[in-house]
Amino acid sequence: MSDEFDEGTSLPPTYLVLKVASDIKENTLTWLIDKIRGKRRDGGAELIVMRQPCDPEDGWMLHLSASKIKFLETAEEMELMKEDKAGVMREFTVSQLEEFLPEGMHVDDLLTLAEKQTIVRHELENIRALAEDAHIPGYPTYTLYEGQSIFQVCVKFNIILNVYPLHDQEALKKLGKKWYMSFGDQPIEEIRLYFGEAIALYFTFLGYYTATLVVPVLLGLLQLIVYSDTMSFFCVFNVVWVTLVLEIWKKKSNELAFKWGTISMTSMDEPRPNFRGSMGYDAISGKLQPQSPRYFTYIKMYCVSVPVVFLCLVGGFFMMLASFWAEDYLKQSHASDEYIILVPSIIYSILVFVVNAYYRRLATFLTEWENHRTQSQFDRHRVTKLVLFEFVNNFMSLFYIAFIIRDMEMLRSQLQTMLIIFQLISHMQEALLPFTIKYYGAKFASWRKSFFSSSREKNKFYRIATDEQLFPVLRSLPYLPIDDTRIEEASKEGDMEDYTDTYDDYLELFIQFGYVFLFSPVYPVAAFWALFNNVVEIRADAFKLCKIFQRPMSKRVKDIGAWQRCFEIIGAMSIMTNCGLLCLSPELKRSAPEMGQVEWVLLFVLLEHALLGIRYLMHITISDKPEWVRVALARRNYESKQALKFERSQKNRRLLTRKFKTIHGTHGH
Amino acid sequence: MSDEFDEGTSLPPTYLVLKVASDIKENTLTWLIDKIRGKRRDGGAELIVMRQPCDPEDGWMLHLSASKIKFLETAEEMELMKEDKAGVMREFTVSQLEEFLPEGMHVDDLLTLAEKQTIVRHELENIRALAEDAHIPGYPTYTLYEGQSIFQVCVKFNIILNVYPLHDQEALKKLGKKWYMSFGDQPIEEIRLYFGEAIALYFTFLGYYTATLVVPVLLGLLQLIVYSDTMSFFCVFNVVWVTLVLEIWKKKSNELAFKWGTISMTSMDEPRPNFRGSMGYDAISGKLQPQSPRYFTYIKMYCVSVPVVFLCLVGGFFMMLASFWAEDYLKQSHASDEYIILVPSIIYSILVFVVNAYYRRLATFLTEWENHRTQSQFDRHRVTKLVLFEFVNNFMSLFYIAFIIRDMEMLRSQLQTMLIIFQLISHMQEALLPFTIKYYGAKFASWRKSFFSSSREKNKFYRIATDEQLFPVLRSLPYLPIDDTRIEEASKEGDMEDYTDTYDDYLELFIQFGYVFLFSPVYPVAAFWALFNNVVEIRADAFKLCKIFQRPMSKRVKDIGAWQRCFEIIGAMSIMTNCGLLCLSPELKRSAPEMGQVEWVLLFVLLEHALLGIRYLMHITISDKPEWVRVALARRNYESKQALKFERSQKNRRLLTRKFKTIHGTHGH
Repeated sequence: MSDEFDEGTSLPPTYLVLKVASDIKENTLTWLIDKIRGKRRDGGAELIVMRQPCDPEDGWMLHLSASKIKFLETAEEMELMKEDKAGVMREFTVSQLEEFLPEGMHVDDLLTLAEKQTIVRHELENIRALAEDAHIPGYPTYTLYEGQSIFQVCVKFNIILNVYPLHDQEALKKLGKKWYMSFGDQPIEEIRLYFGEAIALYFTFLGYYTATLVVPVLLGLLQLIVYSDTMSFFCVFNVVWVTLVLEIWKKKSNELAFKWGTISMTSMDEPRPNFRGSMGYDAISGKLQPQSPRYFTYIKMYCVSVPVVFLCLVGGFFMMLASFWAEDYLKQSHASDEYIILVPSIIYSILVFVVNAYYRRLATFLTEWENHRTQSQFDRHRVTKLVLFEFVNNFMSLFYIAFIIRDMEMLRSQLQTMLIIFQLISHMQEALLPFTIKYYGAKFASWRKSFFSSSREKNKFYRIATDEQLFPVLRSLPYLPIDDTRIEEASKEGDMEDYTDTYDDYLELFIQFGYVFLFSPVYPVAAFWALFNNVVEIRADAFKLCKIFQRPMSKRVKDIGAWQRCFEIIGAMSIMTNCGLLCLSPELKRSAPEMGQVEWVLLFVLLEHALLGIRYLMHITISDKPEWVRVALARRNYESKQALKFERSQKNRRLLTRKFKTIHGTHGH
Repeated sequence: MSDEFDEGTSLPPTYLVLKVASDIKENTLTWLIDKIRGKRRDGGAELIVMRQPCDPEDGWMLHLSASKIKFLETAEEMELMKEDKAGVMREFTVSQLEEFLPEGMHVDDLLTLAEKQTIVRHELENIRALAEDAHIPGYPTYTLYEGQSIFQVCVKFNIILNVYPLHDQEALKKLGKKWYMSFGDQPIEEIRLYFGEAIALYFTFLGYYTATLVVPVLLGLLQLIVYSDTMSFFCVFNVVWVTLVLEIWKKKSNELAFKWGTISMTSMDEPRPNFRGSMGYDAISGKLQPQSPRYFTYIKMYCVSVPVVFLCLVGGFFMMLASFWAEDYLKQSHASDEYIILVPSIIYSILVFVVNAYYRRLATFLTEWENHRTQSQFDRHRVTKLVLFEFVNNFMSLFYIAFIIRDMEMLRSQLQTMLIIFQLISHMQEALLPFTIKYYGAKFASWRKSFFSSSREKNKFYRIATDEQLFPVLRSLPYLPIDDTRIEEASKEGDMEDYTDTYDDYLELFIQFGYVFLFSPVYPVAAFWALFNNVVEIRADAFKLCKIFQRPMSKRVKDIGAWQRCFEIIGAMSIMTNCGLLCLSPELKRSAPEMGQVEWVLLFVLLEHALLGIRYLMHITISDKPEWVRVALARRNYESKQALKFERSQKNRRLLTRKFKTIHGTHGH
């Protein structure tokens, strides 16, 4: 990717690799390539398509690129935010090109590689079916409606097998050195430029949350030393701290969103490719976009999705209860045999794993069907559905033990087991495996290399399709020479795992957050394990992204979406659970033997309400945005309001001038 | 006020009447009048000042007006919102005058009388001290700093005694017919045009809230019929209803704010006249305005105001406790004497009345001292302080009876007494008195008329100051002829009471709301009394505004401010109190005798948390703005963003053109 593209003499750089099914029909492929290369006015994407030598049985590998002009034009159309010379993030426009080019920067370097990849992807995804495209040519059953994203349909029907951008090995190496190889602050700005806003925001959150864990860790350790007497104080402080941390995060996140130019994203923005609706002019921007009334989405959500999700949650809850009942039953009938008693929990764990996989597909399907307009809305509603189920699976059993069985010892051991097993598994998946690969790397890498090159050597004969095997449309494409490094990179990165989104990473943090704060008086050491885990996690996640996964597409977000609310709800719940646990704790009860059951419950109610009150006060007094962001946003708003006024008065003046001219003309001649 | 102002031949209409102290020194009055009439560049307001014949011992009555051009210019500067021909509210600009004038409307009728009064008031209040104005001339101790509002200082030091706009009797008569004389919907749009947004919004809220009371009234009546068994159901329904009503109000209020063009008001808007700070260029608009860093305000609020208010609340609480203790003591020592037992509550009531008056002054002083930038912020913080104290005075005793003494009979009778006495007193003040005046009006009015005219007749001799008595500056002013109707109107309306703001009206609703919803299971009939009261209240308040008070200045607001939050907090509290009362109720306890004390408290906790959860869900699912308002705001935002982009690219093009011209010139010549 590092070779300079010299127009006219060599082939342009690859921004996306597209893998098409090997059994694709000729007319389908011709149609698809025509769409990708076609002119804008014919519904095409105006991209450059190249082919590489490949085995026809593996599928066709196409390399997508675009002209320099195309990049600049699309950047303006997509309302891409760029920093101008004055250091202000604003929408890029071609006519103001000069203002975005700092001294000495060439116009080709204006857009980063990630931005160019995003632009190519955006154009690819926005090839929309025309009125005459009734179905995919060659597949009469794969019907299309006007305005549907052709790319998404082809992916759905496995005509397009894979699409991914290529890594920039040089930049990646530099990034890695500052990131997972260092113990300083994370290079968030570099991460953003390489991986996009969504991933940069995840790592900012992870870093911030880990830093704030230091306080509960210290409190937890102090609690271990002085115990019981001060326990309630620590506990109260803990829940207040959680609220404070989340309120300040909102501020921090808005600050970043402002700096990154994502703060003005709304649900009225450009629709996501999969948004279904008849083509029409947008009420806000006047652009031709798929339109679908919002209340359709609401009806689907409230009438179908909510009940379905609710039933699933109830199902999950009863699964959990059943495992407890089975365990109880076995304890009574096979009290002697320790191993048999473990059977229900093992079956339950496996069941949860399996059911979870199905539920994920259900949730994705439902959210897709609800037809949300923007990617952020889609993500928010999908995450909400998934998190509810995860909540039942991960925390309900703990709630049951804490407040129904009321066995504090059991709760502690269960919490410990779950936290440690949970973190071990995630580390196995993320940290240990990659680190093993890295440290025992020399041997492994050489073996891997020899394996890859030998397989390549071996297959060379079959791999390269002869001209006769190629469809005419393929023969017409520019052809990458066999020694082009991109060919190996494309095949290597094509085999890598796909990093779909940040969901799993946030989920891990969310579950850990719950384990640490929901039951902190019972197991105060949890915060320490979490802190230790997260310090490793930052590096493991970074390594994983740089080395293990395909390069993810850069994605713009203005905040952590549904996760903010999820963490806040856990924060509110932690007030209730902590107060509940305090009042149930035998240590406290022993310290005030004169108090009866009723007094304890009333104490719980009082304490909880006071804390909820404090939480509410903190919520209303801590503003969401830092003062300077508020001022900067207000100034921008004011400036554009003034510009609109000015534009209108200019228009008025022109009208008046014309009027007077006409009058003058009538009189004069 | 209805006479047409014919420039040059007669005097312009009066928009504001200004009453200056009779003992004012000559140089002070000269300075003041010079400021009011002075040119903008000399720090003046460019208003027209007229005088009327008056008794020099009464103070000088000045009539303020302005030229037609001045009105239009100031309207643009104040960013006044007007409806354009397309029916869209947007900022008025002189250059687009045509677009705001519907077919057949004269340019003089573009601004309503209320708007013109607001403009004159705005200009009067924004006469700011210059660097050379070290103190008020004639009063070396009344120091001024640069940028201080001279008008506010003069009011503070009683140099200006009164300032008020005059009623438009004809319009008022029309309005009254549609409003307090009718039983249909309130003419909100007419109210807004005559009295301004703040008062129109109050009446919209009052009407809306009254309409939604019908549901609790029906539930309360049903509860009386079927009682005990279904009580908990009604109670639960009630608190859910309250939440729903308040969430929908937010939507409705935003809709109105959009229609009235106030939705974009922020804390960054033009500062209020009393905002103190050194003059500087605003970071947002670049206008010259007083500037003061926001954190000063925060420091003052959190370090002084919050502790002071907290101490006052504790004081109020102990006052309440003391009255209970005294009553208890008297009950034991003078059990036989019924009247002596009443003494503590009577003393308490009087004390509350007195302390409240002092606390109001304290709260106003503190809020003024905190130096909030905009009027909305000032109002919000003042209302918050006042409401907290009112809450302690009005509801704490009920809380004490309900949850400490736990005497349901006492609670019911206390609630009934307080609600009825409270409503009776307010009706005495607002409804009965004015209605008496109105219905026994014929006699009274004639007597009143004769009284006024006779007093006028009587005083005529003294009233009119001779030319020698007048300062030279006064002699130079245009002079209203003695038969001008404005003179009588000015003196009559000057004697009327001053309607300061909507605070008292909202407070009345707030206390009623608390009485109705906080303890509804004990006294379900409360809702009925409230409904009955409010139907009368709408008319009484309307009558009061039209007939009893001086015409209030029109005031722009975008929502009901702190009251929204106050009502919401009562809504949340009503969940807790209602659940608590349900679990304490002897009827319910009798229905499930097998449940112990602990079970009841736990039931309370469960029910309360479930309801709080429902409340939270309603809060996040009901959006604050109707869909069409969101779209319209987004479109306006998009349009102005595009205009800014366009303006910038035009500027760029001009720069480039100039550059190329220079290059061309170099080459050509």
